[in-house]
Amino acid sequence: MAKEDLRLLDFWVSPFCMRVKIALAEKGLAYDSQEEDLLGGKSELLLKSNPIYQKVPVLLDSGKPIVESSNIVYYIDEKYVTQNPLLPSCAYGRSRARFWADFIDKKIYEAGMAIWRSKGEELEIAKKDFIDILKKLEGALGDKDYFGGDNFGYVDIIAISMTSWFYAYEKFGGFKVEKECPKFDEWTKRCLKRESVANVLPNPEKVYEFVVMLRKMHGIE
Amino acid sequence: MAKEDLRLLDFWVSPFCMRVKIALAEKGLAYDSQEEDLLGGKSELLLKSNPIYQKVPVLLDSGKPIVESSNIVYYIDEKYVTQNPLLPSCAYGRSRARFWADFIDKKIYEAGMAIWRSKGEELEIAKKDFIDILKKLEGALGDKDYFGGDNFGYVDIIAISMTSWFYAYEKFGGFKVEKECPKFDEWTKRCLKRESVANVLPNPEKVYEFVVMLRKMHGIE
Repeated sequence: MAKEDLRLLDFWVSPFCMRVKIALAEKGLAYDSQEEDLLGGKSELLLKSNPIYQKVPVLLDSGKPIVESSNIVYYIDEKYVTQNPLLPSCAYGRSRARFWADFIDKKIYEAGMAIWRSKGEELEIAKKDFIDILKKLEGALGDKDYFGGDNFGYVDIIAISMTSWFYAYEKFGGFKVEKECPKFDEWTKRCLKRESVANVLPNPEKVYEFVVMLRKMHGIE
Repeated sequence: MAKEDLRLLDFWVSPFCMRVKIALAEKGLAYDSQEEDLLGGKSELLLKSNPIYQKVPVLLDSGKPIVESSNIVYYIDEKYVTQNPLLPSCAYGRSRARFWADFIDKKIYEAGMAIWRSKGEELEIAKKDFIDILKKLEGALGDKDYFGGDNFGYVDIIAISMTSWFYAYEKFGGFKVEKECPKFDEWTKRCLKRESVANVLPNPEKVYEFVVMLRKMHGIE
């Protein structure tokens, strides 16, 4: 492991934090992790490092904060570019990668939340929306092994972290990604074989239990 | 002007299109512009080039589409990097630039829309939100001439385009950016002295008239 002064403000169930941990693992970078108590109280360091959003993840590189998960992964790749590049080298490929990362950021978490927060007819709409989003991602994947082609890269990291909540969405939504989007599901299983991913993504049952608790907090059921 | 095969799918009043035109001017790149009839019907080329969002701007570089305005400006800088760089060269500076561009993308257009679409108490909240956002941007600007320091760059392009609608927001909101956020206003005036900006931003009265029409379309007044 390379010796850098890297510190991550982390929260175990956040798919956004998972992205950063996968990217750091892909680069072989050692780091200190500080678990935030988001339900209790955020650390002074978090509030100071991310005054605009006050959210995890924050990566401190020699004390300098980088925030917003897709941005952090992009930074890690640009700063540590010689070790296992995650983004394409050409400007056009990079623009496509940023586009799909942004699409994932805008759509998946919100669509997933609509599933676990709704019931009845609303839930049916939420499920349809969610599956439509995955089908668009399947279109972007095409017949490639990974979003960028033959190698696991930037968009894969942005997307695979989100799948850590899919088991919970499936249980509350009564559907199976494997059935609705088989190519996306194959891609998920391919990514999960990577050590960097397998070591970071938590047990789906634990995520499900966390979402059960979130539902209780929001007065659902 | 450098000879490239660049074509822009454009709409005159879109601040997002303005960004691309300013960036192309800063790089000294010639291009063909195709004005879209967004209220009448979108061109086949637009629908084909941006199937996910079906929105302008689209930049076609030798026929290859790049979409989403911040992403396009980033692409232009990466592809034509030797001509007048817009982004900082260091990874940390680039991450800060992406962060603020994303903040502007997430906040300003929506906050401005809340002003021209609301009345009474709602309008007061919308105005307060809008000014809060500008104050955060003032904080990012600090005592610098431009967001990146001494030179007009990426974040300036992303932000200055949005100011083309401020006169309309001021008229519907009954406030003055000059009074609320004097430093931001000074920065605006500094940017407007640049040829690339002055040539692209439309007459504020014309934008105001367009927003009057939008309000009518939405049944306001």
